[in-house]
Amino acid sequence: MEKGRVLLAITGFHPRRWHELLAAEREVVSEPDSLTDPSITYAVVWKQRPNLLSTLPNLRAIFSVGAGVDHILADPTIPDVPIVKVVADNLTQHMTEYVVWRVMDHHRQGMLYHAQQKKKIWHEPPQRPAGDIAVGIMGMGNLGRAAAAALLSLGFKVNGWARGEKVVDGVSTFAGESGLVPFLNATDILVVLLPLTPATQGILNYGLLKELRRRNGLGGAVLINAGRGRLQKDADILRALDDGTLKEASLDVFEVEPLPKTSPLWGHPKVFVTPHAAATSDPNHLVPPMLDQMDAFERGEPLRNLVNRKEGY
Amino acid sequence: MEKGRVLLAITGFHPRRWHELLAAEREVVSEPDSLTDPSITYAVVWKQRPNLLSTLPNLRAIFSVGAGVDHILADPTIPDVPIVKVVADNLTQHMTEYVVWRVMDHHRQGMLYHAQQKKKIWHEPPQRPAGDIAVGIMGMGNLGRAAAAALLSLGFKVNGWARGEKVVDGVSTFAGESGLVPFLNATDILVVLLPLTPATQGILNYGLLKELRRRNGLGGAVLINAGRGRLQKDADILRALDDGTLKEASLDVFEVEPLPKTSPLWGHPKVFVTPHAAATSDPNHLVPPMLDQMDAFERGEPLRNLVNRKEGY
Ligand SMILES: NC(=O)c1ccc[n+]([C@@H]2O[C@H](COP(=O)([O-])OP(=O)(O)OC[C@H]3O[C@@H](n4cnc5c(N)ncnc54)[C@H](OP(=O)(O)O)[C@@H]3O)[C@@H](O)[C@H]2O)c1
Ligand SMILES: NC(=O)c1ccc[n+]([C@@H]2O[C@H](COP(=O)([O-])OP(=O)(O)OC[C@H]3O[C@@H](n4cnc5c(N)ncnc54)[C@H](OP(=O)(O)O)[C@@H]3O)[C@@H](O)[C@H]2O)c1
Repeated sequence: MEKGRVLLAITGFHPRRWHELLAAEREVVSEPDSLTDPSITYAVVWKQRPNLLSTLPNLRAIFSVGAGVDHILADPTIPDVPIVKVVADNLTQHMTEYVVWRVMDHHRQGMLYHAQQKKKIWHEPPQRPAGDIAVGIMGMGNLGRAAAAALLSLGFKVNGWARGEKVVDGVSTFAGESGLVPFLNATDILVVLLPLTPATQGILNYGLLKELRRRNGLGGAVLINAGRGRLQKDADILRALDDGTLKEASLDVFEVEPLPKTSPLWGHPKVFVTPHAAATSDPNHLVPPMLDQMDAFERGEPLRNLVNRKEGY
Repeated sequence: MEKGRVLLAITGFHPRRWHELLAAEREVVSEPDSLTDPSITYAVVWKQRPNLLSTLPNLRAIFSVGAGVDHILADPTIPDVPIVKVVADNLTQHMTEYVVWRVMDHHRQGMLYHAQQKKKIWHEPPQRPAGDIAVGIMGMGNLGRAAAAALLSLGFKVNGWARGEKVVDGVSTFAGESGLVPFLNATDILVVLLPLTPATQGILNYGLLKELRRRNGLGGAVLINAGRGRLQKDADILRALDDGTLKEASLDVFEVEPLPKTSPLWGHPKVFVTPHAAATSDPNHLVPPMLDQMDAFERGEPLRNLVNRKEGY
């Protein structure tokens, strides 16, 4: 097979570095002269314009620039070719750090100490060791499993919830709809690393948060969402924080991004906001495996880390 | 040997739970009827009153209630009997959590995100992975080695500095005075877990902080002190923060504790204050090994985890 051209279709951030790295090995087009260009074999995309991909006659595969693919599938006109997800050590490392950082900050009462410092209060609240706290991870994919391993090594109990049954060393696993409430009932700190799909959209609602465990040494349940904003209902999180259903939350993602200045989440004393920065896609780490996959594909090998179109991730 | 009585001599916090747990197995006196009571064999102490221990005729061992023993040795009249340090999984766990928490918060730019949130700024600064950052641990004892292992497992580079040469898996080690500057020159985040001794008092001064590495992706050097307050010069830390020698600091200990309301550290935007709470001694976990050691000692076995009086730790 010939060396295929790459269409780079990125919106929302600057594609310069992606372009440079891809162009070192392949011909790259950003704005195709014609949408029926037969030499375009691959598309590397982030939130591509609707209809952009539908008329390419020889497109063979779509590569996502981020770990989620909801931004690709949001366009119903995309052609029926394989979609390759990002799986990369660098991205996983960043996400594991984010999860450890936020879990530790809630566990070690960072918000309380911060508030005490402002008032110059020298006071030590009771502090349980990590082994008394169960962190529950929704989404036991590449990111969820790596976060689980790090939390276990730091001494936390870890529960995991996924679509299918699975065995993960040291983790109590729960599966599917019937496993959800038992999973939540055994969880003090909820970490969300789910993809956004028709089945998961809006899943983080008030009723779900109500099921979290609230009888541990933390003084209340905690939500950490680093999956996607539309998994959650911002308003339900605010209600849960205000009535004590949730003690605190760390949110990296929001229903609308950038988070509008008018959102009460910005100023809420129990919310820690980051700007969808838990695990950024670094082209230096993500482009080489994409190029490797294109080469392998042209040698007749199968593509890896493919999206299940029916399930949406 | 007969079952010896225990003198419990704790100032600064309430000894009730320590008393209960010790008294379950041994006779415990808190205020001795006479300071020459010959039945008192052990003293369990935290900041004991000066001269309290000097006249006990049959004292055989002193047990410290905290990991440091500077509070015991501060009294020059203490008799020349073995001093037993605390080594306990529970205490080590708490300290490891504290170190991971503070290192992650500085590494992941918690202070910056906090400041941005106040102003509703949606902005993602560059973020290096942990592998680009070297954490240097001063004091590679029980606590330092455990913290090093946790940081390594999270992907950080780790340097260690101690009095004697040592080999620690995965850690670049440096020893003694001649090793100090090379250690600092290779360190981005400095974590202090030293004991307070004549050799370490005031060691964290401006000149030392100047030697830290300042060319990494963190945007500056960071100090985390969870050892003892008198290792540091509060004023030098402030100077270093104000002129950029330090980017940020997390301080659990201070020259004077509780930290006086007049200290500028309380209100400094680049300082995170905790009230000597990194790793609290929990009697439920620390009393059983003390009682075990007393029993073993009476069976003729040697005491373990002894202080080297000459070195002061
Ligand atoms: N905030 C950020 O910076 C950032 C960065 C990267 C990624 N992300 C988000 O993180 C997500 C996870 O990434 P990943 O690489 O770990 O994905 P992945 O490997 O595809 O794993 C997805 C996990 O979610 C589970 N899941 C999917 N649908 C489910 C449902 N309906 N019910 C229960 N479990 C369900 C899957 O279950 P099975 O194992 O049974 O299939 C799997 O365990 C991405 O989709 C993206 O949205 C966010
Ligand atoms: N903030 C808190 O809540 C809290 C709680 C518990 C403990 N602490 C502090 O943590 C300290 C460490 O506890 P630990 O159990 O790890 O003590 P440890 O096992 O006695 O270890 C002390 C370490 O410091 C090194 N050291 C001592 N003097 C030195 C010097 N002059 N130069 C270079 N290195 C020196 C020792 O070197 P060698 O290995 O060569 O002997 C050893 O590695 C305690 O002393 C206490 O002050 C604080």
